[in-house]
Amino acid sequence: MERRRPPQTEEGWYVLHDFRSIDWDAWRNAPERRRSQAIEEGIDYLASSEAVDDAAEGESATFAVLGHKADLLVLHLRPTLADIDTLERRFEHTALAEFTERADSYLSVTEVSGYMSEDYFDEDAEVEDTGLARYIESRLTPEIPDSEFLSFYPMDKRRGPEDNWYDLPFDERAEHLSSHGDIGREYAGRVTQIISGSVGLDDFEWGVTLFADDPTDVKELLYEMRFDPSSSRFAEFGRFLSARRFPPEHLGAFLAG
Amino acid sequence: MERRRPPQTEEGWYVLHDFRSIDWDAWRNAPERRRSQAIEEGIDYLASSEAVDDAAEGESATFAVLGHKADLLVLHLRPTLADIDTLERRFEHTALAEFTERADSYLSVTEVSGYMSEDYFDEDAEVEDTGLARYIESRLTPEIPDSEFLSFYPMDKRRGPEDNWYDLPFDERAEHLSSHGDIGREYAGRVTQIISGSVGLDDFEWGVTLFADDPTDVKELLYEMRFDPSSSRFAEFGRFLSARRFPPEHLGAFLAG
Amino acid sequence: MERRRPPQTEEGWYVLHDFRSIDWDAWRNAPERRRSQAIEEGIDYLASSEAVDDAAEGESATFAVLGHKADLLVLHLRPTLADIDTLERRFEHTALAEFTERADSYLSVTEVSGYMSEDYFDEDAEVEDTGLARYIESRLTPEIPDSEFLSFYPMDKRRGPEDNWYDLPFDERAEHLSSHGDIGREYAGRVTQIISGSVGLDDFEWGVTLFADDPTDVKELLYEMRFDPSSSRFAEFGRFLSARRFPPEHLGAFLAG
Amino acid sequence: MERRRPPQTEEGWYVLHDFRSIDWDAWRNAPERRRSQAIEEGIDYLASSEAVDDAAEGESATFAVLGHKADLLVLHLRPTLADIDTLERRFEHTALAEFTERADSYLSVTEVSGYMSEDYFDEDAEVEDTGLARYIESRLTPEIPDSEFLSFYPMDKRRGPEDNWYDLPFDERAEHLSSHGDIGREYAGRVTQIISGSVGLDDFEWGVTLFADDPTDVKELLYEMRFDPSSSRFAEFGRFLSARRFPPEHLGAFLAG
Amino acid sequence: MERRRPPQTEEGWYVLHDFRSIDWDAWRNAPERRRSQAIEEGIDYLASSEAVDDAAEGESATFAVLGHKADLLVLHLRPTLADIDTLERRFEHTALAEFTERADSYLSVTEVSGYMSEDYFDEDAEVEDTGLARYIESRLTPEIPDSEFLSFYPMDKRRGPEDNWYDLPFDERAEHLSSHGDIGREYAGRVTQIISGSVGLDDFEWGVTLFADDPTDVKELLYEMRFDPSSSRFAEFGRFLSARRFPPEHLGAFLAG
Repeated sequence: MERRRPPQTEEGWYVLHDFRSIDWDAWRNAPERRRSQAIEEGIDYLASSEAVDDAAEGESATFAVLGHKADLLVLHLRPTLADIDTLERRFEHTALAEFTERADSYLSVTEVSGYMSEDYFDEDAEVEDTGLARYIESRLTPEIPDSEFLSFYPMDKRRGPEDNWYDLPFDERAEHLSSHGDIGREYAGRVTQIISGSVGLDDFEWGVTLFADDPTDVKELLYEMRFDPSSSRFAEFGRFLSARRFPPEHLGAFLAG
Repeated sequence: MERRRPPQTEEGWYVLHDFRSIDWDAWRNAPERRRSQAIEEGIDYLASSEAVDDAAEGESATFAVLGHKADLLVLHLRPTLADIDTLERRFEHTALAEFTERADSYLSVTEVSGYMSEDYFDEDAEVEDTGLARYIESRLTPEIPDSEFLSFYPMDKRRGPEDNWYDLPFDERAEHLSSHGDIGREYAGRVTQIISGSVGLDDFEWGVTLFADDPTDVKELLYEMRFDPSSSRFAEFGRFLSARRFPPEHLGAFLAG
Repeated sequence: MERRRPPQTEEGWYVLHDFRSIDWDAWRNAPERRRSQAIEEGIDYLASSEAVDDAAEGESATFAVLGHKADLLVLHLRPTLADIDTLERRFEHTALAEFTERADSYLSVTEVSGYMSEDYFDEDAEVEDTGLARYIESRLTPEIPDSEFLSFYPMDKRRGPEDNWYDLPFDERAEHLSSHGDIGREYAGRVTQIISGSVGLDDFEWGVTLFADDPTDVKELLYEMRFDPSSSRFAEFGRFLSARRFPPEHLGAFLAG
Repeated sequence: MERRRPPQTEEGWYVLHDFRSIDWDAWRNAPERRRSQAIEEGIDYLASSEAVDDAAEGESATFAVLGHKADLLVLHLRPTLADIDTLERRFEHTALAEFTERADSYLSVTEVSGYMSEDYFDEDAEVEDTGLARYIESRLTPEIPDSEFLSFYPMDKRRGPEDNWYDLPFDERAEHLSSHGDIGREYAGRVTQIISGSVGLDDFEWGVTLFADDPTDVKELLYEMRFDPSSSRFAEFGRFLSARRFPPEHLGAFLAG
Repeated sequence: MERRRPPQTEEGWYVLHDFRSIDWDAWRNAPERRRSQAIEEGIDYLASSEAVDDAAEGESATFAVLGHKADLLVLHLRPTLADIDTLERRFEHTALAEFTERADSYLSVTEVSGYMSEDYFDEDAEVEDTGLARYIESRLTPEIPDSEFLSFYPMDKRRGPEDNWYDLPFDERAEHLSSHGDIGREYAGRVTQIISGSVGLDDFEWGVTLFADDPTDVKELLYEMRFDPSSSRFAEFGRFLSARRFPPEHLGAFLAG
């Protein structure tokens, strides 16, 4: 068995999915003054994080998480890991943090790979002003869309004795991903995705974050993809978390039920 | 290996299985006044949730859970995820919530698929007044039956190298599910089911909720199904939770032991 | 692949294995008065549960659990799930419950299957007074033996691509289980078993509870069975818990170390 | 597939690996008087357990555990499970227990099997005074060696569709274990082992406890064994815990850092 | 199947990855005096650990961990397990420990194996002053590089029925690892690694610690390696933890957010 050719990759912003649970007992029992301060400092943290929204500085957004796995998701994209580290610890020093516990997290970095955009990697200089260059840029320094619904899950490519993604020839992998991408394109305008790599950063190889106004569009897209060989034979999925976006200034309403 | 044809699906109500544990120590030690308030606000939450019972607005029901995994299950079906989100957080603001902790949950959405009802998807307009249309409606906006016993479990279809559901031709899958459905029909009147999809919403692909007056009818049905290839070769089951329904106004008796 | 014929089953009593951990810190620090009350109410709960010992009403027994998984096991068999539900919650209202936390549990129901006793299922009326009928009765409404040692574990039958129990022809399964039963019979008088089904009730398909005065008899029996194909090829085991029986009136001594 | 012949086994002492974590926060904050009492009662418990050191009564030893899994390991070997049960609960009534939590445990019983010593099982009476009899005795009622380092792990033999230990003919298994034993013998004087069976007692089939003055001797032994088919094809390992022995009277120094 | 020849190994320093979570609630609420003391004693512990930096005594370094798995990583390399044991428990007696909980850990020992350096093992005496000897020394008593980013993960070599590392002939394994090493060498100057063995010491067979200034260099290296058969067919990875180095004297700034 020979060593297979890896795709080239280029990385953009680091991504932290920071999931937190609210300590509702503490919240209910806290005096009004401390609750007001928590809301104020929480809005300040979230709003100032989200205010950093141009391509040089990153993006942030806030979500309410459905179910028992967490209550709050703060999603951060930033150019350096130091930025992410700072944001993560700065949260702990808000009065809001007193009412939260860390429930989960995922660390990754936006990436494009040479499967889909070999031209980009081959002839870097000449594509700079083309649509491809703009596409690459939109993948590496993505905008978080305004959609209401978010679905996040980490995933690996399978390395089983029969179905081993990493033992497929490059062209076969590229073909699989091209076919996979075709499905995604049918959902353009309905579902937006941020694909980030996490080999060496977190427990799985990729994080996938999908955005849509209608959650059933995400369900339909992923269900259709599951019948595509790149998923049916080669994908191993981790946990799935579902969340709904809210603007920082609605934090008080979120906490009030 | 080619990409297989996915079934069409249509989705109805979002479903939250909200499992909670009672903090019995806190309950025993609470003053009578706080316990009365918890019961009152709990009944109010549960009864008003259950009062929303027509097909436009959703359904809710309350159950006592057997064993150590949880004590209370509140089952909500609602037209939008926003409704579910609101119900979930509204619970936290009742005095009852102080005596509970979130033990588990499952998020899904009722679905019908084109395997069983291709006509529906093919000739939408013409089936509107037929039995099929009524059947579809009963699956998408189901009534929670009055049965005493509930069994809930999430499940996936297997994607192994030998037994890969997502690599079967459409017709073979449809045949499997038709045969599977035949078993279910033998239990008509004894066991009622709500099948909800959760691809992209929660950790498994489906949630299955079975209702019966006699728990051994559920056991017999699932055991018979386990010998059917769609289960024996293709099903991967998650945890199973068993519960008994009680009317909201019995909450005080439930908490009194 | 065809649908295989399931065995007929008949169910008897519901079974709850209720495992609890003692909060030894709270126990050591509690005033004598509260400890006395806990012992008194605990004995009352356990003794009255065990007093229900005829075939119409069920059986209960109390055990000290070895190792860190739990400290106390209360084993209940009752005709209805409502009885089990009541017993489970009644415990929480004893003063003893304040010193315990739920560590684990298992819900199942005693069963006999048509593999071993096809006659019973085929010619119900005529076997009523025979030894077979008495045997069936002893399986469905078993007495908890007086043995000192108990071993409990849940198990599944394997559904792998090569070794798939649910894809074996009925006769092959019956032959496997007959051969398996032969081993058990060699241990008659030394090891007693209660087999209960839990499809749809709890996470595995069966619970197995073995009783013996000498724990090495259980070890020898299970080790011998492991070489029998019905275990070596087809069994998937869950956790194992070991416990020693004690009479309710020894609860004080148990808690005193 | 036929039923394979199990080896005969003989059992000796029951073995409890009792792993505990120190609550360092509580320890740091406790008044000197309570700490002195904890040390005194702890030493008393450990020293009196270890004092029971002849072949009729059992063995005990105390260890500091490396890493986050636990802090303290008390290893007990005793003739009856009642002895083990008593020791386990007696610990909870020392003042030391207030500063510990149960982190893990393993229950097993020393065993010899007919693979290695068929003569013993075949001609019991005649081997009584031979070296074999003394060897058997040393396995069933072992002395805990004075070595500084201990490594503990539980293990199963694999029952996969290709590599199924329990489906090998007796002679093949005996040959595997003989070859495996040859490796062990090369480490005589450097690594000592206690093999105990736990089928029906705890989650795995065996517990392995290795003792050495130099931890790299254990590493080298296990690494060499991993290339032997009885490990490379047939072993499934659980968690590994590493610990260093200390005499009970050093408990104060252990707790002082 | 025959027993395969294991490589010779030589071990150097014991390695403890000591991961801790900060109890931010306690930290925020602590009086200034206790926080100052915690910072002072923490710096003292970390700085004095790191001060031990020559090849006879070991190495230590301090890191901020990204995500919810931990907050702080103290990495210790020392000549004896007793040194590691002492350092681990000494931490618990600093005022900083009051604000931390143990989140994870990994115990291993630096190693070189005969795959890559057979000459070293064959002709020990003659290589003493060569580059090989210096290379071996740098692996057994490594310096922790000054890089900003650290990635840690434990791993096993697979023992599956098709892909079984431990059943490969020695030369095939050596060839795999030589090819694997070639990839690593391409990253010289960008990524530094410490490989430590943990057979018999902790749950996996090896710990891998990678250091780089740019985290995407680690990601690129590991992604490229994943296409190499020694990873794609034979590696089983555990959890991945990401961290950023900081000098002990920045502990106050780290805790201040």
